[in-house]
This record gives sequence, C-alpha cells and structure tokens, in this order.
Amino acid sequence: MTALDVEELAASVPLPDEDAREQARAREDALTKPQGSLGRLEELAVWLCGVQGTCPPRPLARPRVVVFAADHGVAGSGVSAFPPDVTAQMLRNFVAGGAAVNVLARRAGATVRVVDMGVEPGTAGALDDLPDDVTRYKVRPSGRIDVEDALTRDEAERAFSAGVALADAEVDSGADLLVPGDMGIGNTTPAAVLTAVLTGSDVVPVIGRGTGIDDATWMRKAAAVRDARRRARHAMGDPLDLLATAGGADFAAMTGFLVEAAVRRTPVVLDGVVSAACALVAQRIAYRASLWWIAGHRSPEPAQALALERLDLVPVVDLGMRLGEGSGALVAVPVLAAAADTLADMATFAEAGVSDREHDEPEAAGPPELPDAT
Amino acid sequence: MTALDVEELAASVPLPDEDAREQARAREDALTKPQGSLGRLEELAVWLCGVQGTCPPRPLARPRVVVFAADHGVAGSGVSAFPPDVTAQMLRNFVAGGAAVNVLARRAGATVRVVDMGVEPGTAGALDDLPDDVTRYKVRPSGRIDVEDALTRDEAERAFSAGVALADAEVDSGADLLVPGDMGIGNTTPAAVLTAVLTGSDVVPVIGRGTGIDDATWMRKAAAVRDARRRARHAMGDPLDLLATAGGADFAAMTGFLVEAAVRRTPVVLDGVVSAACALVAQRIAYRASLWWIAGHRSPEPAQALALERLDLVPVVDLGMRLGEGSGALVAVPVLAAAADTLADMATFAEAGVSDREHDEPEAAGPPELPDAT
Repeated sequence: MTALDVEELAASVPLPDEDAREQARAREDALTKPQGSLGRLEELAVWLCGVQGTCPPRPLARPRVVVFAADHGVAGSGVSAFPPDVTAQMLRNFVAGGAAVNVLARRAGATVRVVDMGVEPGTAGALDDLPDDVTRYKVRPSGRIDVEDALTRDEAERAFSAGVALADAEVDSGADLLVPGDMGIGNTTPAAVLTAVLTGSDVVPVIGRGTGIDDATWMRKAAAVRDARRRARHAMGDPLDLLATAGGADFAAMTGFLVEAAVRRTPVVLDGVVSAACALVAQRIAYRASLWWIAGHRSPEPAQALALERLDLVPVVDLGMRLGEGSGALVAVPVLAAAADTLADMATFAEAGVSDREHDEPEAAGPPELPDAT
Repeated sequence: MTALDVEELAASVPLPDEDAREQARAREDALTKPQGSLGRLEELAVWLCGVQGTCPPRPLARPRVVVFAADHGVAGSGVSAFPPDVTAQMLRNFVAGGAAVNVLARRAGATVRVVDMGVEPGTAGALDDLPDDVTRYKVRPSGRIDVEDALTRDEAERAFSAGVALADAEVDSGADLLVPGDMGIGNTTPAAVLTAVLTGSDVVPVIGRGTGIDDATWMRKAAAVRDARRRARHAMGDPLDLLATAGGADFAAMTGFLVEAAVRRTPVVLDGVVSAACALVAQRIAYRASLWWIAGHRSPEPAQALALERLDLVPVVDLGMRLGEGSGALVAVPVLAAAADTLADMATFAEAGVSDREHDEPEAAGPPELPDAT
C-alpha cells in the first residue's frame, strides 16, 4: 500500500443514496404516528435506507464485530490500571466466547471475529495455537509512543492494508453491518493522542480514566499523552505517518477497515474512544466516509466527545459504558434494528384507515382486518 | 374497591430481594471487565436480580405490553393536533398489528394487549366487534377535565380495579416483564395536570407539544391544564379522587396495573409522560412500588422529567421519542435483556484465567478451551 493507493481508496468512497433517503422520509411521514414522533429512530431508519440504497430498509441479517487487539508499549509507562498480560488473556477470552462483546453480540444478532494485530504473548505463553483467522494479520506491538514511534511507516501500511482486507473479507462473506471493537491495555492513550492532534486539543481535555485509573496513574498518562502528542504533531498532515508515530497496528488496521467499509457501501456502528479516534484519522483520508458511520454510544472518555463532535456524529445511547471491545456499539445495534423495523413494517395512515392531523381525511375503504395482536 | 382495599394493596407491596442484589453486585465485580465498565448495564442487571429475587438473572421470557386506550373530553377543548376519532382508529390498528407498538414489541420479544378503557366509537362506527379481551373492562371516555370531573368516584374505582385484574391476569399467564402503554387523543393533558398537582409544579413547566401542536393549540392546552389543575388540587390527598377528577379510566387502570405489578413482584418498564404520571399516583398509593419500575426512555414532554425526578428514576435511553403506546419503553427492553445476559453469561476472571487489576493474580489453572467465537 502506497500513499497513492490511499488516495485512490479515498476517491472511491461513494455517497449514500439520496433517493432512498428521500423515499424513507416520505414513508416516515405516511406511517400511523405523528410526524417525527419516533425521534431518533426516524433519523436512523433514513440513514439506513441511504447506506443500503433501498427503502424500506432490509433487516440487518449479518452484523459482524471485528475486535482489533494489540499491546501498546506505552502501557510500560504506567498508564493503565491493568497489567499488559491482560491483552493476551482477553484475546483468549474472546475466542472462548466469555467476554462482554461475545455476550452482547449474541443479544444483538451479531457474530464476533477477533484479530491479533500485535498482542504480546506475555506470561500466558505463545499465541500461535490460536486460529489463523485471528493471527494471520499480526504486525507487532506498538513502541512506547511517548519516546518512540509506534510502528515504522511500512508496518503501519501493512496494518492499514490488513484492515482493508478484513473489511473486504467480511463484506464478501455477507456482513451487512460492521462494528469495530478494540482490546489492548493502554489503548486509550494513543486514542487520546490521535484525537488531540487531529482536533487541535490540549492534553488535559482528552485524558480520561480509561479502565478506571487512580490519580497517580492519570498523571503518568497525562505526561505520556503530552510527550506523544509533541512527537506526533509533525505527522498530522499524513494519516499513515500519524498512525505509525502515535497509533499502532490495531489503530492502523481499524482505520483501514473504516475507510474500506465505506468503499464497500457497508454501514458501521462506531464504539468508544478508540474507534472514534480511528474514525477521525479515516475521515482525514476520506471525508465522505463518515456518512457511512453512526456513533453507537457515548463513552465517558472525554476524547470520544471531541472526536464525535468533529465527525458530526451524535451517539445513539449514553449508558456510561467504558469497556471497549465493541460493547457500546452492540447496545445500539438493536435500536438501529428497531428503527428499520418501524419504517419497514408499520401501517400507513391509508392502510390502517387512520386520520392524519386535523382536517385530513383517511383514505382507506374501511377498517383493517383483525388478526391477533402481536 | 374501597379506600380500605387500596390501603391493603399498598401494604402488600414487597421490597425487592436485597440478597439477590448483593450477589449480583459481587458477580459484576468478578466478571472479565474493569469494575463498573458496563455502566448502566450493571445497575440494570442488579435491579433485575433484585426484582426477580435471583442471581444470575433469568432471561426475560415473556415481556408483555398492555396499552390502555381511552378518549378524553378535554380533546374537545382543542388541545391536540389530531381529531378524537384517531383513538378508535388506532385501537383497530393495534389489534391489526400495524402500529409502532406492535412492530417494536416484535423486535423486543414482547407481545401486545390493548384494552379499551373508554374509547369513543366516533365516525369509525361501533367498537363492539373487537375481541372481549380488548373491551371487557371498558368504563367510559373522560369528561372535560377543565370544567367537569373525568369520572365518578365509582367509575374510577372500577377502572383502577380493572388495572389490578389486568396485572393479575398477565402475571398469571406468565408475563415476566410488564410495559404500560397508552393511546388517547388529548391524554398528555391529564398527564400534565396529574404531574402538576403531585409535584406542586406550575402550569407552564408541565406543558409540552404532545403529538406536535402549534402555538394556538399550546395556549388552549395551557388554559385547560390551568383550569383542570385548579379543579383537581382539592383531591391531591386521595389518589382515587384525583384520578376521578383529573385522570380518566385509562389513567386509573394504568395506576392500578402499576401497583399490582409490584404486589406480584413483576418488573415494569415505564414509557412516557402518561405512564410517569400514573406512576406518580401509584407511588402516592404505595411508596415502595417504584422499586419495581425502571424508566425506559426520556420523553420530550417536560412533565415526564418532573415526574421521573420525583420518582427517582433515570431513563435508560433518550431518543426524542414522543409517541406513547409503550414505544419508548420497548426500545429499552433489549438494553435490559442485554444487561441480564452480561451478568448471566460472561466469564469471570477466574474462569477465563484473566488477571484482575494490577498485582492481582489469575486463579485459573490454565487458558480456557477454544471453541468457535460467537
């Protein structure tokens, strides 16, 4: 992948289908409810019609989560409440199906794939017993971004291309909604750095409590973000340089994944602060790509709010979730599905013989039939 | 139903199971995630364990919506954007399965029952062709509460008892979660009046745009609420008198339904401004009853916010929905189900061999087995 390829990729991001959006708006206004009374559900249904290119929308048949896992050298600077070994342990927990993302995916009708972009084997032993679809794209753990680059430029391009390949593979396998998940002890630190650089923010407004850090850890994290931001500012004009300097293989892959999802006309539900930071980078590569994404949930991490504001995305739910993995996005998927159902399945005023606002007359010939209530 | 019976009913409202809540809290802290990182999902799971009296929580097998439909004489004072005929037309739409509540219930795994507590037949003709389970509890449409009582005291007691009987019938049929829905042109006006009386609020802070009214209609609604509030204040000490004066058969039935749900240890997800107003009245009858309820969603109707604050309930989602019918609550039901799933199905740190916060050691003998990811 060369810089030229990235520009070609960006140029091939299409716009959502405005005709389908227009049909969706008209149909919303014909359904048996006061106009606009389903609130955000109506906006979501119109968005889904636009990205699917059809109205009424198709049911979401194959939502797919891809969890990008990697370790971050900056965790060695004491920025997290958890030891780095946890990344490898959680990788196994995902594969075994015991993590929050697995449980929430089942509820949302989604399936989960986890990819090891650069997990340190740690004390749990080598990771080469994991399936090939988990390990095949591995690049390496990130360097300590407060003092060195996360990756080389070549490594960042490889990771970005892996994300593109992953989006292609999932869409080719039938995925009709993609959710980017993240796992990596210390990964809110590069997310904060990328967000600070791309929004022009100071250090303190982007630093949150991550998985639940104390004040001393917060101060170490602030120092690491400060130093990494200083190192990364020179790269802000080139998204792949920025990912190499202050991101990591998981961030580069997720960024490629987000751009390629848009190229492939596949809707995305963003999760927390990591996916919002990658979305900011992806937006730098391809401005239109954000039209293919919604924000699933509001994270308590302050960098996420800054990033979403820049992306002009408003979260669907706000439940104080701060786990990552795609967990927050998965709570929003049933809301999106419900929105699609209402637009597809509700009766119109005419079909149901219901009067619209005052002075309008119903157009139906008579009362509807009376099957059992659902 | 006499006043004495209401007091007996109130005395029989139990407390949720504190042992089950304690077990749920302990289990939340043992799951493979940072403590508290699932945010509101953790609170919801703990609440569900308390009301179910068991930990881990049982899956929600039979959520049930009961839509209380009635007409309101005050609609004749020009307080709504829709003609009163719409109540009868929508009653048929519910029975036919074409309304938002039907569609959203299917998505949430719930079923819908609609009860005609006092719908005017209107121009759509008589309603006596509807099934007996819809019509059997009918009392009558409300009087114009700005100038006369909604019901007699006897009628209010009959309607309240119908709500109690409905909760009993649904719980006896296996419902394990109840959602009160509402339908009735003009029904946000009595909801505003009840809320103003019970929170001690002025008129203007409780008046919203309902189904989408213009400024002239808003002013008529404000005058109606002002007059009805003045008529109702004398009744604030007696909940059934209050329902007779300023509520209606649908409000009285929903109030009885909410109290009896608590008596029957059955959790409730409240919907919008009508159910919040009924919950306020039900709380006056039985203070502990609110421990069995959660607020499903934030309505744009300002009276709902006042009522929920008094009830100490925080909505699960905030999507700008203002339809009623139970529609907002139904968007929250999958969130509650997801919360239950995480507590029931996630692996613990020990089970998954994952390290807890720094300096803790995993207790597992080795890595977990590797079935396919979900």
